[in-house]
Amino acid sequence: MSTRYLLLAEGFSGDPHYGKTMRGVLRYRRDDVVAILDSTRAGETEDGAPVVSSVEEALPLGPNTALVGVATQGGRFPPEWIAILRACVEHGLDVENGLHVFLADAAELLELAERRGVELRDLRRPPAELSTATGENLAVDATIVLTVGSDCAIGKMTVSLELDLEARRRGLRSVFVPTGQTGMAIAGWGIAVDAVVADFIAGAAERLVVEGRSRGGELLWVEGQGSLLHPVYSGVTLGLYHGSAPHLLVLCHECGRTEIEGAGGGPHPIPPLPDLVELHERLALPVRPARVAAVALNTSVLGEAEARTAIARAAAETGLPADDPVRFGASKLVDAVLAAAP
Amino acid sequence: MSTRYLLLAEGFSGDPHYGKTMRGVLRYRRDDVVAILDSTRAGETEDGAPVVSSVEEALPLGPNTALVGVATQGGRFPPEWIAILRACVEHGLDVENGLHVFLADAAELLELAERRGVELRDLRRPPAELSTATGENLAVDATIVLTVGSDCAIGKMTVSLELDLEARRRGLRSVFVPTGQTGMAIAGWGIAVDAVVADFIAGAAERLVVEGRSRGGELLWVEGQGSLLHPVYSGVTLGLYHGSAPHLLVLCHECGRTEIEGAGGGPHPIPPLPDLVELHERLALPVRPARVAAVALNTSVLGEAEARTAIARAAAETGLPADDPVRFGASKLVDAVLAAAP
Repeated sequence: MSTRYLLLAEGFSGDPHYGKTMRGVLRYRRDDVVAILDSTRAGETEDGAPVVSSVEEALPLGPNTALVGVATQGGRFPPEWIAILRACVEHGLDVENGLHVFLADAAELLELAERRGVELRDLRRPPAELSTATGENLAVDATIVLTVGSDCAIGKMTVSLELDLEARRRGLRSVFVPTGQTGMAIAGWGIAVDAVVADFIAGAAERLVVEGRSRGGELLWVEGQGSLLHPVYSGVTLGLYHGSAPHLLVLCHECGRTEIEGAGGGPHPIPPLPDLVELHERLALPVRPARVAAVALNTSVLGEAEARTAIARAAAETGLPADDPVRFGASKLVDAVLAAAP
Repeated sequence: MSTRYLLLAEGFSGDPHYGKTMRGVLRYRRDDVVAILDSTRAGETEDGAPVVSSVEEALPLGPNTALVGVATQGGRFPPEWIAILRACVEHGLDVENGLHVFLADAAELLELAERRGVELRDLRRPPAELSTATGENLAVDATIVLTVGSDCAIGKMTVSLELDLEARRRGLRSVFVPTGQTGMAIAGWGIAVDAVVADFIAGAAERLVVEGRSRGGELLWVEGQGSLLHPVYSGVTLGLYHGSAPHLLVLCHECGRTEIEGAGGGPHPIPPLPDLVELHERLALPVRPARVAAVALNTSVLGEAEARTAIARAAAETGLPADDPVRFGASKLVDAVLAAAP
């Protein structure tokens, strides 16, 4: 039976930052979504999907899986959600959750799920027997491309997905490699590398590129996480970088963003793009000297003419091909990656 | 009752790499150690402590706590250790363990410990309610000094401990901040930052500098972990760097080491010291522009004249004060840090 999602986004479905998982699934698995639950926006629609006020209201639409569609910082469950989750389970829906707090650790919910015969899937629960990286990443017989960026939540996953789609349109044996809960919900596999034991970040990334190859990928688009100069998440970023052993990087940036968001104690200014290119290349392992192949801009805050100017400026500043793959198509960036591939 | 350690190092007490915890405790808490268990070296002594072949043989010496003194890569328990751990518990010893695998997760051992009324302390178990960094690290009213290095297991913890001892000898309000299992066994507090959820590395480091200040420290020596260009552990290194928000760094290097050890897929060459200085300063957050204050060399493989030559060369290459604080005292490096402190 195919998945028919009820997206749980109570109170957050209108928030572009906190509704990241919901938005990703709406964009890349729209056909699998039957409704969105957010009582604060009931009666509206989002990408054509109806927003409902309760689990009961969604039932006639035939969902079989509820997906926790919000990601809060630190990953805790808002208390008001417990009642919603109980209602999903009581009505026989499987539940997928991408927060750091696990559904299966809530004893009462787990017991109810067992009684009702539904599954609780914690996307961020690391696989058992994860360990440190071994060097097997360096032997993967594929071109590995990692998205990196100037901040969190600027579109690194989207760029990886768009470039993968374009590569597959061209008939290439291309695979998107999910490293976070939204990517996993979209692609149906992966490891949330931010949720593993810190010593095992690179080990998890290594396992993912090995699996991407075993899924037939000769061109692997690894979903990036965080940012090298993000005060909160930089450790995950560097561990993912070294563990995924990319040949090439695509540097992502959101136009108009000048400071890293969501980190206390700031302001935390974002360096100019050429500095970011140089910094990322400096941090490549000597044994795998990754180069930035292209710049992917998120120009969503700009008008079209301004967007084209911003792209031309980024290309001039960095000397690299640049584009907004969501707005203008992924063709130029895929060309750039293929031209730079070893 | 003060701690009287039996150090468990079966098969590894002679190995300088794997006996790291044992060696650290022998060096900095020698008076608390009554014996070392390693049947392969029974009858010998190590730093004056007798090496015994079994738990039973150690009992007349009056231990009250067994400490797992070896750290294996990936942190798994060698199977033959289970019998030793059972014997410790059966004879009423508390057990401290710094591996990623937790004693308290072994149901049978836990049950036995409860029956015998002894405590199983897993040093690497992260504190509950750990979360992401908040920016509070930047408000800590102390001078924060982090050791960084060209590789793992080259003496970063030892340098932090020696500089702390020297600072305290001078009457400064100085505190060593433990970030790994050996530092924790020595100092009796801390968090093993390599064992926390990856998203929380910086949050754990932040909590540690906040606690170091609340313990009275005006000069905090944060124990470094890993290395920025280590293929396996770099994520922990960068998360600890940004999360501990150091004002100053002490760059540690072991003379004679030209490649990173213990990482597959190599060789992984170590860059020249000036490159490492520049790379570490590049990765400071703009809001907290850390500078390398001094270079600490581990010259243990060199004769004395060669050691002095290597130190002079490192100072000339980097333009920074350099010394081997274990061999020649920590005075010069403490002077350098105090001169550079904000």
